[in-house]
Amino acid sequence: MIVTTTFAETRRLGSGVVGLVPTMGYLHEGHLSHIAKSSQANDTTVVSLFVNPLQFDDPADLDRYPRNVERDRDLAFSAGADVLFAPEVSEMYPEEPLTTVVVRNVTDHMEGARRPGHFEGVATVVAKLFAGLQPDVAYFGRKDAQQVAVVTTMARDLSFAVRIEPGSTVREADGLALSSRNVFLSESERRRALSLSQGLFASADLIDRGVTKGATIERACLDHLVHVDVDYVQLADQGQARPLESLDRPAFLAVAATVGSTRLIDNIAIDAGDSGWVVDRGDRLSKASMLYGGSDAAGR
Amino acid sequence: MIVTTTFAETRRLGSGVVGLVPTMGYLHEGHLSHIAKSSQANDTTVVSLFVNPLQFDDPADLDRYPRNVERDRDLAFSAGADVLFAPEVSEMYPEEPLTTVVVRNVTDHMEGARRPGHFEGVATVVAKLFAGLQPDVAYFGRKDAQQVAVVTTMARDLSFAVRIEPGSTVREADGLALSSRNVFLSESERRRALSLSQGLFASADLIDRGVTKGATIERACLDHLVHVDVDYVQLADQGQARPLESLDRPAFLAVAATVGSTRLIDNIAIDAGDSGWVVDRGDRLSKASMLYGGSDAAGR
Repeated sequence: MIVTTTFAETRRLGSGVVGLVPTMGYLHEGHLSHIAKSSQANDTTVVSLFVNPLQFDDPADLDRYPRNVERDRDLAFSAGADVLFAPEVSEMYPEEPLTTVVVRNVTDHMEGARRPGHFEGVATVVAKLFAGLQPDVAYFGRKDAQQVAVVTTMARDLSFAVRIEPGSTVREADGLALSSRNVFLSESERRRALSLSQGLFASADLIDRGVTKGATIERACLDHLVHVDVDYVQLADQGQARPLESLDRPAFLAVAATVGSTRLIDNIAIDAGDSGWVVDRGDRLSKASMLYGGSDAAGR
Repeated sequence: MIVTTTFAETRRLGSGVVGLVPTMGYLHEGHLSHIAKSSQANDTTVVSLFVNPLQFDDPADLDRYPRNVERDRDLAFSAGADVLFAPEVSEMYPEEPLTTVVVRNVTDHMEGARRPGHFEGVATVVAKLFAGLQPDVAYFGRKDAQQVAVVTTMARDLSFAVRIEPGSTVREADGLALSSRNVFLSESERRRALSLSQGLFASADLIDRGVTKGATIERACLDHLVHVDVDYVQLADQGQARPLESLDRPAFLAVAATVGSTRLIDNIAIDAGDSGWVVDRGDRLSKASMLYGGSDAAGR
């Protein structure tokens, strides 16, 4: 259980097969499920913690993004992390960075279209973590389905010797997808935010019954989104995050909506099973998330 | 002495400290000096050989670029290479690549301005070699001074665990900088091509005498370029390849010109010495380059 601040030291500590869990901190059960999985499967588990300014298109969002390194350190280590890499901005960007990693096509729609520069920031910082830490496996949450597609494409195109391991979305007991941004929701906003997952599950029921038409699947979700400001509901393919007219390959149904001042995203993954499409609705917590537990949540 | 075609196998063969010499093949004494240096300094020397379509802005230039794998293999191994990584296009690009590594500022002038997409192709394929082969040191020729700046910036920004080692330009006995493209020159073109290095050496003489004004230094070179089609003569800083009004930091004086149908570049590096500026005019061969020796040149 070591906290590091430089790439070189972190790389040296990575013996055997190294799993990396990249995070922006303020960990929740979603992150911890990745850490636990990595800890079981690999010799060394490195958790990185860096709130990456490059991927915030909205400075206000960057400013208020929740941060608590001590809390994250305790949580990461109790979940099985061996090393917490928490670099200062001066280690990540000793000089003004001039290099950007750009992924085409996969970033054309949904979050890529709504958040200019966001995925360039993501692809660049993840390439940097892969280059500087040389992990063998890296864990990313399926809640950010388009991000999984972007990172997978980037790692393949640049021949990084890393396997991308997507993890199921972790949800609260009532279905709300975990997000560090959930801490901004008031009680009434939180109730309204529930409609995102409820809409997705309604669509999932249709898919379970054999519906494959994109518009029908999207409509079922949209019908639930009455008290939030809907940005999009989109069926897209997992590989390149392109809109799908009908469910004819591994896909995800994504939703984005703003509730109060907080923009939320969620999705269900739709994978090929032995006898048709199988919806990954994520995993449910049986009790309230540690996100709402204050600093003593580490002990839960 | 092993020829490999995949990143994974090449990576596995790299024991200890690994030096990488990236090339597009058709090796000459410039490449061989890198290989010899790496072989002396490192445990494993990997030479990569891939004519990278991404960095050719002119399809005709790509088509006629000289290729001879057997010749290159023999030359690389006799110079001290341990592994020759010669991937097929299908290993480099199993699917249509969607990812590009873009370096700003450093690519604004000279070759970056004249060859659209060239440095994106260079930065992307070099990032791929660094990501897939994980070398500790990588060797690049100073003849491509702006390329050295681009690759150094990219490696720094993406935190690659690699040191960039620039090598002095190797020149023929009469001063012509070695380039695989020299094989295209007719005898009369070759004579005219000599004016590039002669112009640079005239500027070097001025610098040796204490001249620091950019325009004066450039003028001295330009005055020699009477029988070639001059593209630019530019004093620029080594770090970011930006035009310099006067010599006030490590720099290079670059020239580009077309002779017949062949576009040539050359430069002298100007480094900070203990008592003023020191010009790196490159190293001279004492006899004709192996470039003109046909396939038996490997034995020289």
